Amino acid sequence: MSECVVGVDIGATKVAAGLVDETGGLRGALTVPTPEMGGEAVLKAVFDLLHYLAARAQRHAIHIRGIGVGTAGQVDAEQGIVRSATANLREWSQVPLAERIGQATRLPVRVDNDGNAALLAEVWAGAAKGHGDAVGLTIGTGIGGGVVTGGRILHGAWGGAAELGHLCVNFRGPRCTCGSTGCVEAYASGHGLVERLQERLAAQPADVSPVAREYLSSHGLDGVTTAMVFQWAEAGDALARETLDDALAALAHAVVSLIHTFNPTVVVVGGGVVAANPAFVSQLAARVRGLGMSSLVQPVPIVPAQLGARAGVIGAASLIWWQCGG
Amino acid sequence: MSECVVGVDIGATKVAAGLVDETGGLRGALTVPTPEMGGEAVLKAVFDLLHYLAARAQRHAIHIRGIGVGTAGQVDAEQGIVRSATANLREWSQVPLAERIGQATRLPVRVDNDGNAALLAEVWAGAAKGHGDAVGLTIGTGIGGGVVTGGRILHGAWGGAAELGHLCVNFRGPRCTCGSTGCVEAYASGHGLVERLQERLAAQPADVSPVAREYLSSHGLDGVTTAMVFQWAEAGDALARETLDDALAALAHAVVSLIHTFNPTVVVVGGGVVAANPAFVSQLAARVRGLGMSSLVQPVPIVPAQLGARAGVIGAASLIWWQCGG
Repeated sequence: MSECVVGVDIGATKVAAGLVDETGGLRGALTVPTPEMGGEAVLKAVFDLLHYLAARAQRHAIHIRGIGVGTAGQVDAEQGIVRSATANLREWSQVPLAERIGQATRLPVRVDNDGNAALLAEVWAGAAKGHGDAVGLTIGTGIGGGVVTGGRILHGAWGGAAELGHLCVNFRGPRCTCGSTGCVEAYASGHGLVERLQERLAAQPADVSPVAREYLSSHGLDGVTTAMVFQWAEAGDALARETLDDALAALAHAVVSLIHTFNPTVVVVGGGVVAANPAFVSQLAARVRGLGMSSLVQPVPIVPAQLGARAGVIGAASLIWWQCGG
Repeated sequence: MSECVVGVDIGATKVAAGLVDETGGLRGALTVPTPEMGGEAVLKAVFDLLHYLAARAQRHAIHIRGIGVGTAGQVDAEQGIVRSATANLREWSQVPLAERIGQATRLPVRVDNDGNAALLAEVWAGAAKGHGDAVGLTIGTGIGGGVVTGGRILHGAWGGAAELGHLCVNFRGPRCTCGSTGCVEAYASGHGLVERLQERLAAQPADVSPVAREYLSSHGLDGVTTAMVFQWAEAGDALARETLDDALAALAHAVVSLIHTFNPTVVVVGGGVVAANPAFVSQLAARVRGLGMSSLVQPVPIVPAQLGARAGVIGAASLIWWQCGG
């Protein structure tokens, strides 16, 4: 009889789960949209996924060793409690996730932040394999972070650490959703890219290119998407190019700040925005090269995440398999 | 017979040493200017201080348990080697400090970065007493940093971590000595304050106040000092006020970034600039309050360092007494 851990990845848009073996291999995974009602509805979706995977494991004579959960929001990993939700996940604070899932399944449960889980997956079985000092950025709608330092996940006092999307890169910059100013997320996340381009399109109508103008005439400013920023920049739109250029500069300076702060041996950059634009990470790496304290910055490879959307589930499972988060 | 540890603090301008008891009490300390020749001359100064303190200890029947050293530059704390010096300390890289001092004294020696040592002192016996998650900033000519997370000093892969003066707060900002752009040190260190005020004085001659104009007429732009930035701001000089205001905004955003990154329970701010301007830390704390993720930022007190110039020596000694840096 073989053994697996169930990894669960709870994000603002989807909940994913799968069986993960002891090498980080994913044996079947499934994904459902995150229930918009939040709270109990999300828990219900998790239990449905666990139920399905338990049946599947039984059919294949796989013993389930435990359940690892990575979730959006700030997590007290020691207690297994979601402390504070992201704005995108309703009624998801002060949720005693480990207790609820443990009671229902009678299995060991560990919970951590999804940014931490994604980095752990890369350290375990991906782009940062074997690194004891690694920094991870996940660039999607927002920007999530994770840090492994001296072989341990950085949690801080109660699990709120590694909110790396909210590193300030311009104290005179645009307001961020977090209440601060000029966070890297406000420039380089999917949401930030769209907002910064919308600002430019509104402020500099004379500079809007024909391709953008045509799209806007039927869809309006609200129709701008992250993909469009990249497509229009590719097509030569000056405002989209400025927006992307700013995002790369902001990200490069955030990465250099992180290298100055953590002295890591690798920086892993993943997430939906990166997956959709493969050149992004090498452009970022080229910018980082020219900046900061060379003894710290020069030796550090800036690499794309390897595990893609699977990282969340694999990293969540690693919380049980690897327990480096202890 | 009582026991002490010798703490040694090697900075760009002075070398200090003293006997430190097991409660963090400092029994006699002395300071010499850092030899400008660097390297062997600095080591010679350290040995002279150790020699003096050994004689003093013998006279008072104090047993010396070991020697802790905090030094400017990036330190491999595990090996006790200075890896990379600051620009202000000549021939001070690849120095096997623990080995050299250990061979000469036959005592246990531990070495760490001076920013780490200063924070350890505050955690041991000062403003951050008892905190296992603390961030420290030392604002002098430059800005040094230290981080204790989960009860351990943050070292990174080879001791280069916590270069917190080189967090970027404006990717479109002024060049920093480190090779990056808009580091907090370029705005809020003694050196940064002077440079930013000099730029304003040169660029906006019409806005120079009478008090500044009179001083500059005899001393020139090169005569501007850090103290003057504060004095002129106090006297109503608009350019000095702008410079200080920018420094506080830059520091506040750096502190918020650090709280987002480390989820600490306290932030300690010390150094010569703070010691000379006691209102600075409360002004900074007031700015931090309004920024960032409230669940992380609101609960964290921003406090002035308590141990002043003694922190370096006391923290260095704590490396032996407390060994939390392990």
